[in-house]
Amino acid sequence: MQNLYQDTIVAPATTPGTGAISIVRVSGSNALSIADAVVQLKSGSISDSKPYTVHFGEVSIGGKLLDQVLATVFRAPHSYTGEDMVEISTHASSYIVSELVRLLIEAGARFAEPGEFTRRAFLNGKMDLAQAEAVADVISSTTSAAHRVAMNQLKGGYSSQLDSLRTQLLEMASLLELELDFSEEDVEFADRGKLLALLDDTIGHVDKLAASFHQGNMIKNGVPVAIVGAANAGKSTLLNALAGEERAIVTDIPGTTRDTVEELVNIGGILFRFIDTAGIRESSDTVEKLGIERTFRKLSEAEIVLALLDSTLPENDLLNNLDIILDKVDLDTQKLLVLLNKTDVLGEYGVNKNVTIINKKVLLLDNKVNIINLSAKTGNGIEELKELLTQEEKVLIANADSTFVTNIRHFEALSQASAALKKCRTSLSLSIPSDLVAEDLRQALSGINNILGKDLLDPEEILHNIFKNHCIGK
Amino acid sequence: MQNLYQDTIVAPATTPGTGAISIVRVSGSNALSIADAVVQLKSGSISDSKPYTVHFGEVSIGGKLLDQVLATVFRAPHSYTGEDMVEISTHASSYIVSELVRLLIEAGARFAEPGEFTRRAFLNGKMDLAQAEAVADVISSTTSAAHRVAMNQLKGGYSSQLDSLRTQLLEMASLLELELDFSEEDVEFADRGKLLALLDDTIGHVDKLAASFHQGNMIKNGVPVAIVGAANAGKSTLLNALAGEERAIVTDIPGTTRDTVEELVNIGGILFRFIDTAGIRESSDTVEKLGIERTFRKLSEAEIVLALLDSTLPENDLLNNLDIILDKVDLDTQKLLVLLNKTDVLGEYGVNKNVTIINKKVLLLDNKVNIINLSAKTGNGIEELKELLTQEEKVLIANADSTFVTNIRHFEALSQASAALKKCRTSLSLSIPSDLVAEDLRQALSGINNILGKDLLDPEEILHNIFKNHCIGK
Repeated sequence: MQNLYQDTIVAPATTPGTGAISIVRVSGSNALSIADAVVQLKSGSISDSKPYTVHFGEVSIGGKLLDQVLATVFRAPHSYTGEDMVEISTHASSYIVSELVRLLIEAGARFAEPGEFTRRAFLNGKMDLAQAEAVADVISSTTSAAHRVAMNQLKGGYSSQLDSLRTQLLEMASLLELELDFSEEDVEFADRGKLLALLDDTIGHVDKLAASFHQGNMIKNGVPVAIVGAANAGKSTLLNALAGEERAIVTDIPGTTRDTVEELVNIGGILFRFIDTAGIRESSDTVEKLGIERTFRKLSEAEIVLALLDSTLPENDLLNNLDIILDKVDLDTQKLLVLLNKTDVLGEYGVNKNVTIINKKVLLLDNKVNIINLSAKTGNGIEELKELLTQEEKVLIANADSTFVTNIRHFEALSQASAALKKCRTSLSLSIPSDLVAEDLRQALSGINNILGKDLLDPEEILHNIFKNHCIGK
Repeated sequence: MQNLYQDTIVAPATTPGTGAISIVRVSGSNALSIADAVVQLKSGSISDSKPYTVHFGEVSIGGKLLDQVLATVFRAPHSYTGEDMVEISTHASSYIVSELVRLLIEAGARFAEPGEFTRRAFLNGKMDLAQAEAVADVISSTTSAAHRVAMNQLKGGYSSQLDSLRTQLLEMASLLELELDFSEEDVEFADRGKLLALLDDTIGHVDKLAASFHQGNMIKNGVPVAIVGAANAGKSTLLNALAGEERAIVTDIPGTTRDTVEELVNIGGILFRFIDTAGIRESSDTVEKLGIERTFRKLSEAEIVLALLDSTLPENDLLNNLDIILDKVDLDTQKLLVLLNKTDVLGEYGVNKNVTIINKKVLLLDNKVNIINLSAKTGNGIEELKELLTQEEKVLIANADSTFVTNIRHFEALSQASAALKKCRTSLSLSIPSDLVAEDLRQALSGINNILGKDLLDPEEILHNIFKNHCIGK
């Protein structure tokens, strides 16, 4: 595998756009001499320069100046990739960058694959696989919470937890080895007690990590909040009011049903993913029924449900609309906020009357349900709603420095490790021979190793899948 | 004025996006100490570091790591701005960049105004004003020709021509001074002969530079090519075929009439600006007439006119459509290409017949007019058209290394200088007293000084206008 990484790679490391500076990165065993072939320093050469120094130079094509550049020199192993590296800083022109990259390729470099710089950093032992994956998360973080979780993983806080899990698993494996060695002498029971205690402890840790994926995923991809209500309750207006100027990214998130609109909004450092749904009403129309079914599915997948009611409706309709939603919400696992919209149309009397009606209904429920009066149209009450949303999820901010699993690959590896360990436990209590138990233990260990990128069975495939979604130049 | 520039400024120097690295720039007398307040090096400090060195450090907020960064140290006057400067390289996350900028502002920096780094480079004598303006042109260049012209200006090739103009003007001014000193002694005529010769030479140079604006503007903003024809001739299809995968920028260029579509396409290193126009036909409808008038105006402003004819039409219609266009094209100043579209529908016989018809018509004209058969739909003949377009404008590539005026501010200053010099010439030949002649000469000199940014009368206003359209961080 080493052979693959002896060539020298090149790619732009900054986004082409309208900034002042662009950076082109070259990394590999010939990085310095290739850069020398393209960049003419005023005196001396890049190859003869000390590491961590910056040099003014010129890049020309056929005697014509392409640009005046700064070249920063890094020497293996003290660079991002662990290889010799040069970062060439140019004026931020896409023309200059593409010509410079072309010249470096002509001088012997190869255009880097997506994520290849970070992949080399992993292969050269600069970081483990979980840290390498965190690089992409750090870059894409848009909220304080997501940033802190990703940075904790990049710094190795997450890896060190997995490392202690590995140590425990290796300790268990050696205890089992001991048993195998002495199997003729029937020393089984003494060790199995210790083994079981260790196993229970390890299963606890693995399950806790795997369970953190629920919150970790919300921190990274947004807390799913379904906006549910009748057709004219004002759902889209509410979505716009919430997104407003705080709008982070306006997007149809890929993979979601096309006709539900989702918006990511950063509220108080937490990313919320608001999901606008089709209006609920009783219908015999097949197409409309399908839409309403989809609404109910979105509702059931949400962490928080916003039940949006048109408070100008007669009491019976109001209660009826709420009932339909209450019927679908699972108050044991989901949070419900009842929003009485269109307060701008009602007088104070009407607002108070509505609250009394809804309160009476909601108090019958065991769980605490908050009620907010608002006008999505005028923006009245929107701040109160945002405040309540951050209150509901403040744990995400409070815990952002602890370790979260945010990566589905890790979650799956941990779930498999947990299953293998539980199988182990059953086998041990059934006094199944230790060589069979050892196999399950190996599977659990392999799951943890997979996350860290240690002893990979099929490294090329695993690395390809991980880095293919990275950017060029990363 | 100096006071304004004693504070320290900060801004991102790279476009936020999905790259690997972002750069934040700090420049000013406290740049090093402000960076020290935010970036914690492993050992030592940025203030104590040698220039042109790179240092690994950490940026934290309230004890929590924001990012691991590299800080590059520059010391006045050996930096882009001529001031102390630090470039801080972070992971390319918009969250990290905005937090880092916030920290640097809290530590005493001020957020930079658009173009302020380059403006400081000018004020600190690192470049003259024409060079400072060229920075923006270098960054926005998308073709080889535009890049070479902008780079020539940035390198000072353009400024050195203006400098020799200045020298000539100063020489003339001193000749006039001499005359003033000796005016009592009637030495007038001896000097005026030399003065007139020098004046003619200078007027020649100024006019040549001013005249280069026509080509310079085309190199920078694209050669305007109007696509003109009847309503169903296939103009939009042709525009799409030309833009195709080479499409550089798809845009309604601001300031142009909304209902003409323009596209910038890089063909063989030259930027062409294709202008789709409303279909021409005889009409009594007022609104339609207005659209057709606009088409004729676009046609008259174009460097090249593509007369697009639907070659499946009967001979009379074909000739009639061509006549309407021929009537509006000025073959002395504009280039005309006749395009016989929809060859995919005709057999070979039809194609040949059409060419004969059009040839007969076109041969009656004095000027050489090229005819191309093509199918905008299948792409047949498009390459031939592109080849012909680059042939027509190959002079732009050939001359790209000579000096071009590409800036309307410079063009206006040169035109005014030329007018002042011509007034000078008339005054001299009319033997008007030299103090009045000297005033015209001063005006011409002031025009040239304005371009270079020397002895500006109202520097704040001029600089504000020049740099306001620059990017932040440049």
